[in-house]
Amino acid sequence: MPELRKDPILGRWIIIAKERGKRPTDFIVEQSSSKGGFCPLCPGNEKTTPPEVLSYGDANHMPNTPGWTLRVVPNKYPALVIEGELDKEGEGIYDKMNGIGAHEVIIESPNHDEAFAQLPPLRLIHVLQAFRDRTIDLGRDPRFKYVMVFKNFGKAAGASLEHSHSQLVALPIVPRMVVSEIDGSLSYYKYKERCIFCDIIRQELKLEERVVCQNDYFLTITPYAPRSPFEMWILPKKHNSSYITQSDESFQALAAIFSESMRRLNGCIPNVPYNFVLHAAPLRSEPLEHYHWHFEIMPKLTQIAGFEWGSGFYINPTPPEDAARFLREAKV
Amino acid sequence: MPELRKDPILGRWIIIAKERGKRPTDFIVEQSSSKGGFCPLCPGNEKTTPPEVLSYGDANHMPNTPGWTLRVVPNKYPALVIEGELDKEGEGIYDKMNGIGAHEVIIESPNHDEAFAQLPPLRLIHVLQAFRDRTIDLGRDPRFKYVMVFKNFGKAAGASLEHSHSQLVALPIVPRMVVSEIDGSLSYYKYKERCIFCDIIRQELKLEERVVCQNDYFLTITPYAPRSPFEMWILPKKHNSSYITQSDESFQALAAIFSESMRRLNGCIPNVPYNFVLHAAPLRSEPLEHYHWHFEIMPKLTQIAGFEWGSGFYINPTPPEDAARFLREAKV
Repeated sequence: MPELRKDPILGRWIIIAKERGKRPTDFIVEQSSSKGGFCPLCPGNEKTTPPEVLSYGDANHMPNTPGWTLRVVPNKYPALVIEGELDKEGEGIYDKMNGIGAHEVIIESPNHDEAFAQLPPLRLIHVLQAFRDRTIDLGRDPRFKYVMVFKNFGKAAGASLEHSHSQLVALPIVPRMVVSEIDGSLSYYKYKERCIFCDIIRQELKLEERVVCQNDYFLTITPYAPRSPFEMWILPKKHNSSYITQSDESFQALAAIFSESMRRLNGCIPNVPYNFVLHAAPLRSEPLEHYHWHFEIMPKLTQIAGFEWGSGFYINPTPPEDAARFLREAKV
Repeated sequence: MPELRKDPILGRWIIIAKERGKRPTDFIVEQSSSKGGFCPLCPGNEKTTPPEVLSYGDANHMPNTPGWTLRVVPNKYPALVIEGELDKEGEGIYDKMNGIGAHEVIIESPNHDEAFAQLPPLRLIHVLQAFRDRTIDLGRDPRFKYVMVFKNFGKAAGASLEHSHSQLVALPIVPRMVVSEIDGSLSYYKYKERCIFCDIIRQELKLEERVVCQNDYFLTITPYAPRSPFEMWILPKKHNSSYITQSDESFQALAAIFSESMRRLNGCIPNVPYNFVLHAAPLRSEPLEHYHWHFEIMPKLTQIAGFEWGSGFYINPTPPEDAARFLREAKV
């Protein structure tokens, strides 16, 4: 079973994936490996993945057979495992818990070469609703505190499979990054009695210089202090801390702005590798007046090197005002 | 002038390197660029770098001419610039300051192909003392609060030049990562009245399973919760929060253990790309009883992808106990 270990100085948790148990030689081989032609995510190869937990498609298609347009399956090589009791213990001055969690793959399309940004509107809505539906389902398990939804696109951004897919990991603790955002926005709220994200939205809509695109429900901006060139955030205009309580009609608008944002990014830098993540209030949280769910989209264009590791500072060679202008002017 | 901008939610600072002002097409070109044969860090090419601020070598060699064995020069493309007043201001709800700082390159050897781990003992001592001497010198400038020393080795770890070199950046604020370590160790100190690093050293020496190597003054371990496979920390056995107050004789022992640790790492995974960083108390800080300077060495063997970005969690496929065993058994 994987193990969760806490750095005693920073309180940062690490997943030790013992099962993967990599030896030095594994890394040497990996550096020179090349990809084969077989795709376990393509229709017809359903038996090579664990059985699906959700699928959309033809009304009369059978589970784990072709006919689906979206499919969610457990990750065959999960970072955390779903079976077992959550057990916390100490090891001298250290703390650990066993690696209970869920790790699922959202196969976004039956077509191997269809990128996220090219999905037809209805199918993109399904992907975004699958994020919601799986989060709701996993949220019923009291062992889990957070479901992290994310996507890796392109080898440089950590994708090991070409076929368009995103992932989610259900975690027994709220991740540090989300805790920091919630704490940071709470400090602001205590002082101002307003949501800092709502204030950001107001200021950005007024200034316009960092606005990439918008519709009635959503706004895409390049944030004021982006870690990466062309980093974008997608925010709901109306305050809401919880992704899973978004109204059904808002998903159409979310799919539209997500698709437009990604096509603008591709218009600037074709086929750019990227990651996106969904940040929202923890599972079973009451509605938070100070926190606001959002997607963060991080193109992989700069190296994270010693300075960034050591300091937590990032160096970004493209001011977000320039990036927003390029994105607005991109051909879509 | 570069700009320092603060993320209003997380308090995370970003350097916007406006001068580099990268446009979308710059990234497209970069992805397919290849290196030329000219090395600006080699002897004979001293005129292609800014004039040196420190050098060691033949007693009678002239500045900025061959004859040096170590040379420190300002970075030709600095992330921060040294001229100007420190100026802080708001932009609506956002905060920024101008990008005052220093960015220097420590050229570790006159020989283009001589790696850090292969430096003769005396020359490695000089590198480690140059970290100290430049930190002391820059610490006289009251605008600076911290000097971050780091090294990128290998393209995958962000090195843009092959010739063996490390870098330092003097910053007008203490970086978030160091603040978090100092805060974290202070919490422990308030509870236990002991330095957490000293407690870690005691526990690791007793257990031995994560010890890589040691000598009278220093200890190299694989930390309990490592972000990366084969991550190593080098710690002084005797409590000290400040790198620059280390005794002269301890530098010999530091060079010995640093060299041995890196040769063990290379023995496991030849030519592995890596970063290292030096963490110590801020400039002009009084001695801190709760904090302990150390080097962190991070081999670049796993991808930082969406999950890590979004959560702050890291997934490590090699338990540190296994890594330490491989490192101990490596041929040096």
